[in-house]
Amino acid sequence: MPTNETIHLLTHHRTIRHFKEQPLDQNTIQTLLNAAQRTSSSMFMQQFSIISVTDPQLKKAFAEITTYPFTENNGHLFIMIADQHRNEFIGNEAHANTNLLHDGDRSLAAFDDAALAGQSIVTAAESMELGAVFLGSILNDAQQVIDLLHLPKLTFPVFGIAVGYPNEKPDLKPRLPLKSVHFENCYQEPDKDTLDAYDQTIQTYYAQRSSNNRTETFRHHIIHDMQVSPKKRSEILSVLKRQGFFLKN
Amino acid sequence: MPTNETIHLLTHHRTIRHFKEQPLDQNTIQTLLNAAQRTSSSMFMQQFSIISVTDPQLKKAFAEITTYPFTENNGHLFIMIADQHRNEFIGNEAHANTNLLHDGDRSLAAFDDAALAGQSIVTAAESMELGAVFLGSILNDAQQVIDLLHLPKLTFPVFGIAVGYPNEKPDLKPRLPLKSVHFENCYQEPDKDTLDAYDQTIQTYYAQRSSNNRTETFRHHIIHDMQVSPKKRSEILSVLKRQGFFLKN
Repeated sequence: MPTNETIHLLTHHRTIRHFKEQPLDQNTIQTLLNAAQRTSSSMFMQQFSIISVTDPQLKKAFAEITTYPFTENNGHLFIMIADQHRNEFIGNEAHANTNLLHDGDRSLAAFDDAALAGQSIVTAAESMELGAVFLGSILNDAQQVIDLLHLPKLTFPVFGIAVGYPNEKPDLKPRLPLKSVHFENCYQEPDKDTLDAYDQTIQTYYAQRSSNNRTETFRHHIIHDMQVSPKKRSEILSVLKRQGFFLKN
Repeated sequence: MPTNETIHLLTHHRTIRHFKEQPLDQNTIQTLLNAAQRTSSSMFMQQFSIISVTDPQLKKAFAEITTYPFTENNGHLFIMIADQHRNEFIGNEAHANTNLLHDGDRSLAAFDDAALAGQSIVTAAESMELGAVFLGSILNDAQQVIDLLHLPKLTFPVFGIAVGYPNEKPDLKPRLPLKSVHFENCYQEPDKDTLDAYDQTIQTYYAQRSSNNRTETFRHHIIHDMQVSPKKRSEILSVLKRQGFFLKN
C-alpha cells in the first residue's frame, strides 16, 4: 500500500475524549481554522461558520447538553455551523430572491460544507499530535445551542469538535469489512455472514480493549440506538424547519 | 504557525478538474478507501457507503448528469452514499422498530458520515500527489443517480468525488476573511465592509488567474446562484422523502 505521513494519520485515527489541561495556543487554533477554510465547499459558496466556545458559562452549558464534562474543562471547543444566513444577507442587500436558500439542496450543501471543514480541523489537529472528538451530542438540544450562540435563521449547529492534547491512547476500533461499505457500479445488500463476522470482531474488541470493557456486538449497538433517542433530538426536523432549512422541495 | 506535511496539504488545497489519462491502480484505490473507513462516524454507526463507478456506460451517464465530461474519461469516480439502509436491515433482522432511522437527526447523521469520509478521501488523495474534485453536481438529477446505482430506500447520493493524476495546477482561490466565518461565543452578522474587501480580492483573482478568467465578485457569484438551480435539483427534498429521509421530526 502507498503510504506517507498523512495516510498514516488518516488510517490510524482514533477519537480522543480525554485531554490534558494544557490549552491550545492561538497559533494552533489559527492553523486549524486555516485548514478548515481551505476545504472545498459546494459551488464555492463557503456555506459554513465556526464558533469557538471559550466563555466558561457557555462551556458549562455545552457540558450539560452533550453530557461530556470534558467540554467544560479542557480542550478547545469548536461548533461547526451550517450557514446560509450569509448568503441571505448578500441576497437581501441586492434585493434578490433568496427563496432557493431554503430548499433541500441548499440545506444539504450547508451541512456538507460544515462537515467537510470539520473533518479538515480533525485531520489538521491529529497531524500536530493533538486529539479530537466530534460532538454530535450538541444535537441533544439543538434549540438550546441556537439560543446560546445567538444563531440567526438559516444557520444550524452541525456538530461540535473538541481538540486538545491527548491524555489517552485508545485502541484502534475495527471498522465494517470494506466489502460491506464499498461496491462497484451498483449498491449491494448487506450480507448476514459478513455482519456475523464483524459482530465477533467488535465483541472481541470491546471485551479486550484497555478501558471501558463491555460485551456488545455491532448489531447490539445499532439496535439499541435505534430504540432510544433523547426526546429533543428526535424532534430536530422541526428545529431545522424553524431555522429555515428543508422548507421547500 | 505550526506546520507539517499534512497542514501544508490542507492549507494548499485546490480543486483539480483535469486529470491525466493514467488510471489509479488498485492499491491506491484501496488506500483511499482505508482512509475513508477510518474516519469518525456519528455514534460509531458508519452510516455511509461508497460506490466506485467504473462501468463505461454508467460513467457516460454521470458525465451527462454532472455536465463534467471528465467523469466519463479519466479519474476514478467515487459516489458517496448516505446509508441508513444497513441499519434498517439490522433492525429488520431483529424485528426491531426502525422508525427512528427516518427522523431528521438520523438523516443528517448519514449525510455527515458520508461527507466526513469523503473529505478523508480527498486529503488522502492529495497526500499522494493526486488531485480531486467534489461533484455536488450529481444532484442535478438525484433520482437518476438512485436508479443508475440501484440505491434502496434509506440511501442517498451525497456527492461524487473524482480522483486522478493532476493535469493542471490552478492558483489558490482566496477564501472569505477568517473574521467573516469564525466567531467567539456568539454568531456575528455579516459585515458589509469585509464583504466589499473580499469582493475585490475575488474579482482580482478571477481577472488574473492563469485560466478561465472572468469578471465576477463573490457577491455576483452568490446572487447568480441564488436565482437559478436546475429544476430537478431544486426538488431534492421530495426525492429525499421518497428515499425515507427527513420524514419524521
